[in-house]
Amino acid sequence: MWGKRDDMVVHQTEPFNAEPPPAALAGPLTPADAFYSRNHGSIPQIDPSTWRLRVDGLVYRELDLFLADLQERFQPRTEVATLACAGNQRAGLMAVRDIPGQTPWGPAAISTAEWTGVRLADVLAAAGPAPGAAHIAFTAPDVAQVADPPQPFGGSIPLRKALSDEVLLAWSMNGQPLPAAHGGPVRVVVPGYIGARSVKWVQSITALAQPSDNYFQAADYRLLPPDADPTRPGQGFALGPVALTSAILSPDDGASMAAGPTDVAGYAFTGDGRAVVRVDVSPDGGQTWIQASIDDAAGRWAWQQWHATLDLPSGCREITARAWDDAGESQPESPATVWNPMGYGNNSWHRIRVDVR
Amino acid sequence: MWGKRDDMVVHQTEPFNAEPPPAALAGPLTPADAFYSRNHGSIPQIDPSTWRLRVDGLVYRELDLFLADLQERFQPRTEVATLACAGNQRAGLMAVRDIPGQTPWGPAAISTAEWTGVRLADVLAAAGPAPGAAHIAFTAPDVAQVADPPQPFGGSIPLRKALSDEVLLAWSMNGQPLPAAHGGPVRVVVPGYIGARSVKWVQSITALAQPSDNYFQAADYRLLPPDADPTRPGQGFALGPVALTSAILSPDDGASMAAGPTDVAGYAFTGDGRAVVRVDVSPDGGQTWIQASIDDAAGRWAWQQWHATLDLPSGCREITARAWDDAGESQPESPATVWNPMGYGNNSWHRIRVDVR
Repeated sequence: MWGKRDDMVVHQTEPFNAEPPPAALAGPLTPADAFYSRNHGSIPQIDPSTWRLRVDGLVYRELDLFLADLQERFQPRTEVATLACAGNQRAGLMAVRDIPGQTPWGPAAISTAEWTGVRLADVLAAAGPAPGAAHIAFTAPDVAQVADPPQPFGGSIPLRKALSDEVLLAWSMNGQPLPAAHGGPVRVVVPGYIGARSVKWVQSITALAQPSDNYFQAADYRLLPPDADPTRPGQGFALGPVALTSAILSPDDGASMAAGPTDVAGYAFTGDGRAVVRVDVSPDGGQTWIQASIDDAAGRWAWQQWHATLDLPSGCREITARAWDDAGESQPESPATVWNPMGYGNNSWHRIRVDVR
Repeated sequence: MWGKRDDMVVHQTEPFNAEPPPAALAGPLTPADAFYSRNHGSIPQIDPSTWRLRVDGLVYRELDLFLADLQERFQPRTEVATLACAGNQRAGLMAVRDIPGQTPWGPAAISTAEWTGVRLADVLAAAGPAPGAAHIAFTAPDVAQVADPPQPFGGSIPLRKALSDEVLLAWSMNGQPLPAAHGGPVRVVVPGYIGARSVKWVQSITALAQPSDNYFQAADYRLLPPDADPTRPGQGFALGPVALTSAILSPDDGASMAAGPTDVAGYAFTGDGRAVVRVDVSPDGGQTWIQASIDDAAGRWAWQQWHATLDLPSGCREITARAWDDAGESQPESPATVWNPMGYGNNSWHRIRVDVR
């Protein structure tokens, strides 16, 4: 389905929501056939030759750009960037307390690709943001029935982020034309922010004084306090930068293995402007830790893959991972302390159980 | 001593290390007589008329600047900034496991002032950083006997941070000439970074390809894994941005009070490029939480003061606070999970015990 490998964990077929088996995320780049897919509506099929991008709002010059205009008028730029769904690892929260109507994402709603396109900043410079512009909103054609009222997907990012070097309007993923399932012909890529802000099939870019009033900016993708009613809009705060997170990709949760040295591997990632500097792995649920070796990242906006070897005695063992960023912050120990009504941002220590014989 | 209020908690008189009683930190700005004081050597007394600043290293033009040069050649700039000692709340770590030779700072090794000076970026622009410059090092005249070998205090920050608008060479604190105890005549102020990088009595600024090799950059002020030997240099990572933290300033830890509504107040702060968006306060050690109201910050680099009213039943009660930043990150629950051999960065939930009658 949608060019994905056969063993994807498909949470929903329409809209299409799927994540790969964790081990498929090993390596610096994720092949397109394994890249997680998070959709709120039907995947549109858009002819690249007729696709047009409108740039409007608080700008001096409104623009209408064909794909060829983007490619010819602006300097191409490539960034390796990790996209992470705000609901990644929601299953860990749902184990604490159910979150009705939400997808139980495991630890693989996160993937990394090399994106090629143009800098959003260059396109905005051509339009000329006018005084008062403080947020850049994106809209797409995919209508989400789950929204209240049903509406096309959209969102916004602060102008400061939109003007950064790393935010792209991308038409290529890992050297290939961007597949429809990942927003082709052109999507926004906002490195370091939750995936929801990297709007696929982007068709308009609007400079605003305030954040977008689209349902997915104003009501959904917000971190609410535990006791909040998720149907009441405007509570909590809109998510932007990704929180520090990590996960174990191998062995599989529930695997059986022989006692002795066991290779453990995973990813660590953090959002806007921070870097992962240390990853700890525990063979005993967090009582003792060793430091993993961390591969060089493929870029400033890419996850870091890590490896460790644990000496596991026989028995039921809980392997745990946690990352540290360059401000000395680490991840919370328990999903119970970060539980929230929409199930976002579960960055608690990742835990798997293995049966060691 | 050093113009401080009488009720300072003096951890050491020489070098002078003191923090105010927590309640003295209520309010957006901290008076100079309550501002925490962290020193590694004797406080130098420097005549402002003879003070000179040398700018050298990987620059096109070396500079020698008197205070009058700084004040006349560059545009003055004022920033409200919170400075936080990397060892703030170390006492909470020492309660888990002792940390010999380190000061048991409570939650008041953090303070906020309005600083006036010039932008470090403007001074660096006058010197012209040369290719290869990646770090800006600061040195001071205060010799630290605790260093190995004994040496004047120093440190460095990445060039990217040094070129930001907010980093100052400051000669004024809360509208008064900078007191000797706070680095007068001129100190560095690096908002959002641990206090150790805001070098007092700065006498030279050097552009380097690598971080400073000063003891306080290369060996001290590093976050080590729990099992590391703190006497072995170069382990862990050098601290820079401040980790998300918060504390209860009133009531006092150990206070007695009547049952019923009780006002609780405190601060929340986070480092480079993040914002505090929520503070939770618990009347029962973290089982249930209410959201505090957060005062507007006095500036982008200042802490946020918060207030809540808890309804406390009689008995021994544990009041707990934790903050959330705009990436959806929160603080770790337990100091045991962040314990480290030098006792830095204890940003676990702050807890006080009160006796409710």
